[in-house]
Amino acid sequence: MKLCRFEYKNKVAWGVIKEDLVFPFNNLLDLKFSDKILNLNESIKQAEIRFLPPVTPSKIVCIGRNYADHARELGNEIPGEPLLFLKASSAIIIDGEAIIIPAQSNQVEHEGELAIVMGRSCKNLSEADNPLEYILGYICLNDVTARDLQKKDVQFTRAKSFDTFCPVGKFVETELNVADISITTKVNGLVKQTGRTSQMVFPVEYLIRYISNQMTLNAGDVIATGTPSGVSKLKAGDVCEVEIEGIGILQNSVK
Amino acid sequence: MKLCRFEYKNKVAWGVIKEDLVFPFNNLLDLKFSDKILNLNESIKQAEIRFLPPVTPSKIVCIGRNYADHARELGNEIPGEPLLFLKASSAIIIDGEAIIIPAQSNQVEHEGELAIVMGRSCKNLSEADNPLEYILGYICLNDVTARDLQKKDVQFTRAKSFDTFCPVGKFVETELNVADISITTKVNGLVKQTGRTSQMVFPVEYLIRYISNQMTLNAGDVIATGTPSGVSKLKAGDVCEVEIEGIGILQNSVK
Repeated sequence: MKLCRFEYKNKVAWGVIKEDLVFPFNNLLDLKFSDKILNLNESIKQAEIRFLPPVTPSKIVCIGRNYADHARELGNEIPGEPLLFLKASSAIIIDGEAIIIPAQSNQVEHEGELAIVMGRSCKNLSEADNPLEYILGYICLNDVTARDLQKKDVQFTRAKSFDTFCPVGKFVETELNVADISITTKVNGLVKQTGRTSQMVFPVEYLIRYISNQMTLNAGDVIATGTPSGVSKLKAGDVCEVEIEGIGILQNSVK
Repeated sequence: MKLCRFEYKNKVAWGVIKEDLVFPFNNLLDLKFSDKILNLNESIKQAEIRFLPPVTPSKIVCIGRNYADHARELGNEIPGEPLLFLKASSAIIIDGEAIIIPAQSNQVEHEGELAIVMGRSCKNLSEADNPLEYILGYICLNDVTARDLQKKDVQFTRAKSFDTFCPVGKFVETELNVADISITTKVNGLVKQTGRTSQMVFPVEYLIRYISNQMTLNAGDVIATGTPSGVSKLKAGDVCEVEIEGIGILQNSVK
């Protein structure tokens, strides 16, 4: 099932996508954990709505160096436990909007990633808990990074948090086995990054359990699971695409 | 004027404190930028409400090494521009709640700080803009830090984002000149950190203008302005207090 968030007649709602229709609902958590959605009987044509980012997270937790080849291409070791950092939610834009290169940087790069959207709050998950039960679904995400500032600042925050530096796809896909799916990032149609989720140093279940033991994960929070090797510089006029098997394509131009 | 957020009869509202009374209102921004508050005629006794954290930020932006003595005590140089990092909002607790030492750390330390609460969204403020016009007010904040994990991880995120690691005061003080006020942090009544805001490497106006040029600041966002020297280890049973002249005292026990 594909979920979206949209504006229609000056109101904002969540919706379920079915072919060219959107079935609206108001409470995201009702959808995942009850059958209320099945009773909906009104729909809107996709062409009549304005899509909004389908995530409004209280935090975006990112994982650094979660693909060995990418860690190596930047000259880093593979970490012994997940390397966490936060990206400002003010950086979120949606599929179709433009990534804007800030004046401060001469080296803005793409990082195509599978991102998890949490469906329920969790804290201190143990080995006995199933982390997948807390997931709402998955989205395409581009963890755009000012590589020069990342090196200069040491802290990743600023380099990762410029406005427009967090493009996300239009849809949250709620039914997907992400154990071994492909992630491909292209610039102007040329493949730059390819990888499979099975290459993650720390897979999805491990990440959720680990993070939940460092901080409470809230419903709606986003976890960006790291990027495969092949990151490259973006310049004005480029078009960057992140395609994830079973989810779709996130496409953004660069200004 | 002192603002608070509270629960009363299963409803949540913002309020203005006047002696032992709270005057409720619903929309924080209406208060700051219109005179609606003046028409309120109902009040509740403080004793009948449950105080909630008076901030619900979309992000907490923190400034590292903004007091020269503190930079030096940790063996760091004074930065040439503000050092930004983010703290997870899930770490917020209120005055009176307990800081919980996580099993992962053997060196949890206090960092008493003046924090800014934004009143209006801003982006790319120039020298011609007055950053103070975008501020709602100020709160006491304790940027609790697992110093051992901060050193180990290099990225500050995890060390600063454990649940309970962001105690904030009950009130936002909206009328205060913060150019030169004292900040004192005590543990079990003994003074550990003392400083004056006039010692900041980058003062409040500079910080807001600077951050707004890296990322959009939203209404309600919190900026923690850095800590004076004197940080020290907290242990279970301690009581930690952050007192800021003109705002009040933030007190938390440690478990």
